[in-house]
Amino acid sequence: MKALSIIKIGGNVIDNSEKLHQFLLDFTALPGDKILIHGGGKIATELGVSLGIEAKMVDGRRITDIDTLRIVTMVYAGLINKNMVAQLQAKGCNAIGLTGADGNIIKAVKRPVKDIDYGFVGDLDATSVSSQTLDSLLKSGLVPVLCAITHDGDTQLLNTNADTIASAVAVAMSALYETSLIYCFEKRGVMRDIDDDNSLVREIRMNEFESLQADGIVSGGMIPKLHNAFEAIKSGVNAVYIGKADELSQIDQQNFGTRLIR
Amino acid sequence: MKALSIIKIGGNVIDNSEKLHQFLLDFTALPGDKILIHGGGKIATELGVSLGIEAKMVDGRRITDIDTLRIVTMVYAGLINKNMVAQLQAKGCNAIGLTGADGNIIKAVKRPVKDIDYGFVGDLDATSVSSQTLDSLLKSGLVPVLCAITHDGDTQLLNTNADTIASAVAVAMSALYETSLIYCFEKRGVMRDIDDDNSLVREIRMNEFESLQADGIVSGGMIPKLHNAFEAIKSGVNAVYIGKADELSQIDQQNFGTRLIR
Repeated sequence: MKALSIIKIGGNVIDNSEKLHQFLLDFTALPGDKILIHGGGKIATELGVSLGIEAKMVDGRRITDIDTLRIVTMVYAGLINKNMVAQLQAKGCNAIGLTGADGNIIKAVKRPVKDIDYGFVGDLDATSVSSQTLDSLLKSGLVPVLCAITHDGDTQLLNTNADTIASAVAVAMSALYETSLIYCFEKRGVMRDIDDDNSLVREIRMNEFESLQADGIVSGGMIPKLHNAFEAIKSGVNAVYIGKADELSQIDQQNFGTRLIR
Repeated sequence: MKALSIIKIGGNVIDNSEKLHQFLLDFTALPGDKILIHGGGKIATELGVSLGIEAKMVDGRRITDIDTLRIVTMVYAGLINKNMVAQLQAKGCNAIGLTGADGNIIKAVKRPVKDIDYGFVGDLDATSVSSQTLDSLLKSGLVPVLCAITHDGDTQLLNTNADTIASAVAVAMSALYETSLIYCFEKRGVMRDIDDDNSLVREIRMNEFESLQADGIVSGGMIPKLHNAFEAIKSGVNAVYIGKADELSQIDQQNFGTRLIR
């Protein structure tokens, strides 16, 4: 099977134009088929403030009401996605910017209301991603750039977590490609000693995950991240990387972040 | 050659949710390959007002400064385009929403400053449209929905007239398809008598255009519209239609608006 890299970047890269420029250069230089998935960053919050629309939080979690959905659709699918595509094109990467509604690439389900009504938020399952359409775009030489907006197939756009999209896309594409899922975030990866920059854990196998938790090396927010990564691996993803965006160019030398494998 | 319809709708349809719903139903029902091109409507102006950004006009023409470009990118490429795609998907049309930056489909040139600096406005020429990329999307069973944003290939997004995009796309695709270019606007077409709803001119041949102008049947804003239409026909477009969006379903019965042919 051909290799396919699915790379997710977050707000810390998007909000910094220099970092974004360097990241997009490194992304363009990555060999082989690839898909970029991006979140939002501060721009959506700032536009909301300018428009007098307050971020609504319940129990510390953001609620996507209809005004917020309008804003994230404008910012994620319009402003951020299209500027990123124009920058990639200038660097020689034939990017095509998409939401999950485009080509019905990702059909989500509006999150059911239990204790909290999250509003227009989409959840994904094993049938959400249309691997066929992504495959035909890749075969046309295009590089899909997906933002964190999906749809329900019944006219409704939905705000959807970009990490979740990246994982669902990687799992679905594993039927057709040997997939690597690469999460770029603000840290170098899993560190053996949080105060020692040279203590990066290069590789974690699934059966080592529990003992790393017991030793306290994997803790806090890293636990659900790694849990989700190993779930993706169980579902067919070849390897998951967690590392720093500005080290992406070293991934070919097996020198990027922490590598999670079966 | 296979037939391809390129259909342009404007603000009068986009701003009216009932009209838009009916139009998208009719568009979905159109047989054969098709491309939709849409303008903006009032939403961009309204968002500008909400953000305290005034529309800048010089000699009655709108100037796209950097703030205005941000707004039209958010509204055209984000809000309008993605909601339209989600609606088309719900109606069974496999739409994919794009700007000219996506897949480098339309590379424009920033309008040179002469007497007026129009700002970030893109002009098109014979080399602007990548017919190959549009063709491969069509061959994948996708229906491109293009908004009025292009790029210059050097990171800059550009605001570009949707009528001009429609014409340039139709001309470029004429190398591969038998193209029809369909402009939906607020009137039924060219009327022999403006006060008589039954006086629609069904067909105008290129050599009749001048005498219709001399007779005053084609006048005012209709002259440049028809001039541009015949230019497109000279450049390879098979037929151009000018008519009312809510009569689109009758185009198969040769019963839609005014048809312009060689």
